[in-house]
Amino acid sequence: MIMGMIVANQETKCIDTIEHECPVLVYINNRRRFIVVAREEGFLDTDIGRIPYRDMIGKVYGSYIVLPNGLRAYLLRPNFIDFIERGFKRRSQVIYPKDHGMILVLLDIKPGYRIVEIGVGSGFTTAFLARVVGDNGRVYSYEIRRDMIEIAQKNLEKIGVSHRVVLRNRDARLGIDEKDLDAAIVDIPDPWSVVETLEDALKPSAGAVFFTPTVNQVSRLLTMLESRRCWIDTRIYEVMLREYEPQADALRPRTTMIAHTGYLVYSRYAR
Amino acid sequence: MIMGMIVANQETKCIDTIEHECPVLVYINNRRRFIVVAREEGFLDTDIGRIPYRDMIGKVYGSYIVLPNGLRAYLLRPNFIDFIERGFKRRSQVIYPKDHGMILVLLDIKPGYRIVEIGVGSGFTTAFLARVVGDNGRVYSYEIRRDMIEIAQKNLEKIGVSHRVVLRNRDARLGIDEKDLDAAIVDIPDPWSVVETLEDALKPSAGAVFFTPTVNQVSRLLTMLESRRCWIDTRIYEVMLREYEPQADALRPRTTMIAHTGYLVYSRYAR
Amino acid sequence: MIMGMIVANQETKCIDTIEHECPVLVYINNRRRFIVVAREEGFLDTDIGRIPYRDMIGKVYGSYIVLPNGLRAYLLRPNFIDFIERGFKRRSQVIYPKDHGMILVLLDIKPGYRIVEIGVGSGFTTAFLARVVGDNGRVYSYEIRRDMIEIAQKNLEKIGVSHRVVLRNRDARLGIDEKDLDAAIVDIPDPWSVVETLEDALKPSAGAVFFTPTVNQVSRLLTMLESRRCWIDTRIYEVMLREYEPQADALRPRTTMIAHTGYLVYSRYAR
Amino acid sequence: MIMGMIVANQETKCIDTIEHECPVLVYINNRRRFIVVAREEGFLDTDIGRIPYRDMIGKVYGSYIVLPNGLRAYLLRPNFIDFIERGFKRRSQVIYPKDHGMILVLLDIKPGYRIVEIGVGSGFTTAFLARVVGDNGRVYSYEIRRDMIEIAQKNLEKIGVSHRVVLRNRDARLGIDEKDLDAAIVDIPDPWSVVETLEDALKPSAGAVFFTPTVNQVSRLLTMLESRRCWIDTRIYEVMLREYEPQADALRPRTTMIAHTGYLVYSRYAR
Repeated sequence: MIMGMIVANQETKCIDTIEHECPVLVYINNRRRFIVVAREEGFLDTDIGRIPYRDMIGKVYGSYIVLPNGLRAYLLRPNFIDFIERGFKRRSQVIYPKDHGMILVLLDIKPGYRIVEIGVGSGFTTAFLARVVGDNGRVYSYEIRRDMIEIAQKNLEKIGVSHRVVLRNRDARLGIDEKDLDAAIVDIPDPWSVVETLEDALKPSAGAVFFTPTVNQVSRLLTMLESRRCWIDTRIYEVMLREYEPQADALRPRTTMIAHTGYLVYSRYAR
Repeated sequence: MIMGMIVANQETKCIDTIEHECPVLVYINNRRRFIVVAREEGFLDTDIGRIPYRDMIGKVYGSYIVLPNGLRAYLLRPNFIDFIERGFKRRSQVIYPKDHGMILVLLDIKPGYRIVEIGVGSGFTTAFLARVVGDNGRVYSYEIRRDMIEIAQKNLEKIGVSHRVVLRNRDARLGIDEKDLDAAIVDIPDPWSVVETLEDALKPSAGAVFFTPTVNQVSRLLTMLESRRCWIDTRIYEVMLREYEPQADALRPRTTMIAHTGYLVYSRYAR
Repeated sequence: MIMGMIVANQETKCIDTIEHECPVLVYINNRRRFIVVAREEGFLDTDIGRIPYRDMIGKVYGSYIVLPNGLRAYLLRPNFIDFIERGFKRRSQVIYPKDHGMILVLLDIKPGYRIVEIGVGSGFTTAFLARVVGDNGRVYSYEIRRDMIEIAQKNLEKIGVSHRVVLRNRDARLGIDEKDLDAAIVDIPDPWSVVETLEDALKPSAGAVFFTPTVNQVSRLLTMLESRRCWIDTRIYEVMLREYEPQADALRPRTTMIAHTGYLVYSRYAR
Repeated sequence: MIMGMIVANQETKCIDTIEHECPVLVYINNRRRFIVVAREEGFLDTDIGRIPYRDMIGKVYGSYIVLPNGLRAYLLRPNFIDFIERGFKRRSQVIYPKDHGMILVLLDIKPGYRIVEIGVGSGFTTAFLARVVGDNGRVYSYEIRRDMIEIAQKNLEKIGVSHRVVLRNRDARLGIDEKDLDAAIVDIPDPWSVVETLEDALKPSAGAVFFTPTVNQVSRLLTMLESRRCWIDTRIYEVMLREYEPQADALRPRTTMIAHTGYLVYSRYAR
């Protein structure tokens, strides 16, 4: 839905007013929500009407356009979840926002942090981290697949945070360039193979989260962490997110849910 | 365990080296973990030995002291969860880290954000938000109970972020001073009573999360949000966090878990 | 998949050997599983081969036929879950097996029990109960919709337990004929409207389970139960069933799950 | 709370009227619930009054006695969950009612079934199964620990179903006497060690449920089942039961829950 081109850096503009090249979440109702880019040409075509992109320019985020049928099309500033749901390209299994939140809490991430990410995939986690570390922080992201690097790069540009990320098309199992990092997030099929590497890259007292889908991976990773004798306070979590139907007089959980994405293995490096 | 005095601002010092007045997580094993403050006098007394606080000064975070019985006492930089578990004073029901992560994701919080918090309680959420918004952000926190304000103030000082928080001992139902805020978090028994107030305080397109323990509150809040006709994209979530025993050869979920803290009602203000 | 005709009563035959008119679960693999009825004519047509129904007659349940491509087609005795998944007609929301098990435990159901069911739907719960109460027990089932009664009747005949069920096309809110019943299960949109009726029909000390999808219904039902002052030991449960992928070396929960069917409100009548 | 002596067989008496030796659940409120045996001597002593056991004799189940302070003490017929919570002796980890219900559904248990149980423990599952198979069914229960056999025997007698159970103080890994059984339930630390044994004991098409607490056990069991090539339709489940506070105007899940008892591995024997 969103074009592949680079949009404006919405960290410094696209904050209150929709300018040229700003991303917009057009929200009509829960089933009709679209991410588009405001510009002079083109339009959003929906089953209940067409909205020219240029009509959005100059509007305030949070205002609306009335469609011919009387419905309102709200022009919202897309947030991270909106990009996850509608804006980003996806070509791999991804970590979900429910896990992102817990990863941030476990790793104690804050502005200015320097983080290593091993296994970039479509760059969703990269984007999440880059938002939170701010302009003084950095995310160093290792990925062996060239095609994933390119997708991640595009996704980072869409939300204007690619300048905070160093994408490395390299195998982290062979080493990490950075030292004294504040935190690590690992999302590869063989997380045990980078444990030693992380010991060189992390500050003592820093934490790592390993995201793994199967219990077999968790078990093998635990064996590796124990054998190294410098990883402590190991914890394993699973985040289950349940959504409810937002009806005041018929309130109930949604019928289906994502029951599993992966386990979060947290451990802390000390020496 | 931690003394009530003001400790060093660990946002600017207490980062790599343990200096005078720095907080330390002394980690011996999962059952023996303590938050203390490094200083010249006093000591940590545990069932397996005594550690003078002064021995910690000058050590690097992540290093360890060998106890008389041969066990290692790791000196770690306490992170947010450690403060929640061992460091903060608590005199109210609190929002848990599992919810903090999801709140951050939903509200799309990043450095520089200006956030209003209605209902401070022990200040755990305040502290979490203040860490993430950084020095350019602000958290405006309203609380009617004077005693809770004082506890929150102490907790904020312990992690060195009180300068990012404006604590107001006021009833937010009567109005909020700030305008054009980026996000709101509400944790009071009658969240519907501040919905109109929030409409004056939030930027259009900004989101609010209402944290409520009972379904009756959720239902009544939904009715209010619908009636106002300027709240959209309403979603209701519940975060369930399951922890596993970290044993490689006997991996299994913990027997008991926190099954409920509260529902997260997210909605977005537009006009 | 299964023909609508009445099959043999598999409570007395169809136990070890597949006879004429016996139901058979043809199991090739998890994606290819079919319920059919053994008979002289016709055949099961699958994408990997055709199996004449007559080839099944005389075989022992649990044996297999080798297909032309070498795969085995197992001939199993269909159990209750198989009928739920593949055999029964469904024309309504149904209670799931995960809930059936808990209902049985809560109501303490055993052979010989006489149970009232209010709200029959497609008869899945009726069938479940009829299996467990045995030939000395009875299920009295009230349903206002004639079309549902007919579907339920067919489903009961498919598993040969219709002689244990009395289907009444009546509005239970107007009264129940039976007295001194051992248990009640209620699955209608307004369960509070039959509470008084149940007081006349149940033995003192007997339990009732009310199955309701929304929290609003639970709340209103609780209000009614409290107001009557003869319902005690009220409990509310939710059964969440999580399934795992059965792979020894890549063990993990299924990605999606049924997150909600309904709440089970249990209470006990005493006077 | 309940005396160790044999009580009346409440399958044939103790149904409507409380006779000598009948078990009674004395229910005052959720925190004050006791299982006792009606008899001529002795009394139940609670913090709010004393109830002589003889006062219960001749009363109808479901009636009540008014205590001196005006509260009602209901005299209920204890059901299976009541015995689990208050009546049975327990000297081992046990399978919970939430799992019992699902086991029954998976194994398709009904009156008349002949079931083998490997690993008896305190006999809770034995008792549950014996209730449901009725007088025409049988439960053959193998347990290597003599002391557990004795506890199980006492628990079975308390609910009057010991005549339906054959307790064998033997190691099932060395063989099972019975043939052509309808179902199997296995609750031992090394379930893989009885898989071959079960192949001799079960009818083809019959199912087995293996209850195991750790994922490592599940994985090893799966490997064994696959290697035998005669176990099909393998499924793995986890039952999570969530309880709610039964307050109409403050409805919410209980704060804590049992997050894990064990995994249910279901498979079906075919040859």
